[in-house]
Amino acid sequence: MSAGSPLLAELIEALRCLPGVGAKSAQRMAFHVLERDRAGARRLAERLSAAVERIGNCRRCRGFSETELCSVCASPARDASLLCVVESPVDQAAVETATGFRGLYFVLLGRLSPLDGLGPRELGLDQLTERLRSGEVRELIVATNPTVEGEATAHLLSQLAREAGVRATRLAHGVPLGGELEFIDRGTLAHAFGSRQTLT
Amino acid sequence: MSAGSPLLAELIEALRCLPGVGAKSAQRMAFHVLERDRAGARRLAERLSAAVERIGNCRRCRGFSETELCSVCASPARDASLLCVVESPVDQAAVETATGFRGLYFVLLGRLSPLDGLGPRELGLDQLTERLRSGEVRELIVATNPTVEGEATAHLLSQLAREAGVRATRLAHGVPLGGELEFIDRGTLAHAFGSRQTLT
Repeated sequence: MSAGSPLLAELIEALRCLPGVGAKSAQRMAFHVLERDRAGARRLAERLSAAVERIGNCRRCRGFSETELCSVCASPARDASLLCVVESPVDQAAVETATGFRGLYFVLLGRLSPLDGLGPRELGLDQLTERLRSGEVRELIVATNPTVEGEATAHLLSQLAREAGVRATRLAHGVPLGGELEFIDRGTLAHAFGSRQTLT
Repeated sequence: MSAGSPLLAELIEALRCLPGVGAKSAQRMAFHVLERDRAGARRLAERLSAAVERIGNCRRCRGFSETELCSVCASPARDASLLCVVESPVDQAAVETATGFRGLYFVLLGRLSPLDGLGPRELGLDQLTERLRSGEVRELIVATNPTVEGEATAHLLSQLAREAGVRATRLAHGVPLGGELEFIDRGTLAHAFGSRQTLT
């Protein structure tokens, strides 16, 4: 496949660590950067190393950060009384990009999944409980994914909030904007039907 | 998008040098490697650097090689009387993988395209002519792509071969195996019809 260059074969194999990249795409990527964009490849190598070495987790929200406190947690402009709990940094980025949310985050770095060894301790729930009990949080916005484990996690989070006397809310589920009823799965449609709202 | 980490934003931007990777895939890749596969990312960074620094072009065939002569050119088992001309290293890899070809290659690293500043000199045709005239080549297999520029290049290559008294051949064009006539473009079908062969 690499016509005799071991370094090229190694590069193709290493590219497969990227999600969605199989043997064929990896080969295409390797040949592309070597033929046309060596500067880009050099920059990518540097930034990959820098990111892997220097991006850790924020002490407060557990999201990605290259400093002890991430810029969101460190910002005095954010409203500390609103706390949004997400499963992963990528979910945090999605909420941050899509919504005008100005509160803070807490990243679980997983979801309740005892079979995978992910319990309350791994999800940092001690730290979250402490924060809920400090009195600074007024509303806990639960934004876990609508999967079985995500729902179990949401249930546990709402219990924690109740025990700490904090109001817990959950993202609305229903028909996505621009979706057509015909193509929406039955579970979502049944849920949206059951949770119908009064037109004002 | 990166929830406040400049290194993460830089990594996402750098990933876009890979072909077929847009903003959304780049973000997914960056989050994936940081969350789940830092070892893979570190290995990828090292191999990218190594490949970019150490893979050059073979002195003889101009294909990718980390040594002065690539392993194909250096191999005594290959038949030097057969020379296959391809446009790029990725085409060379395709021929090497798919066929049982045991001859040598010559990589043009482009195709005739005067508007892009690619003429006979850039394609190494002096070097190719010298090789054709040395008397060692018996057949020149032209495997340029069937595009307008590829065809023009093929035409020039056949001229060079004729002048050097070397037989030139061209890859067969026609209906791909497993293709259905209904879905094949008109040009290919017309060509295949015109070049029909006697059933034996």
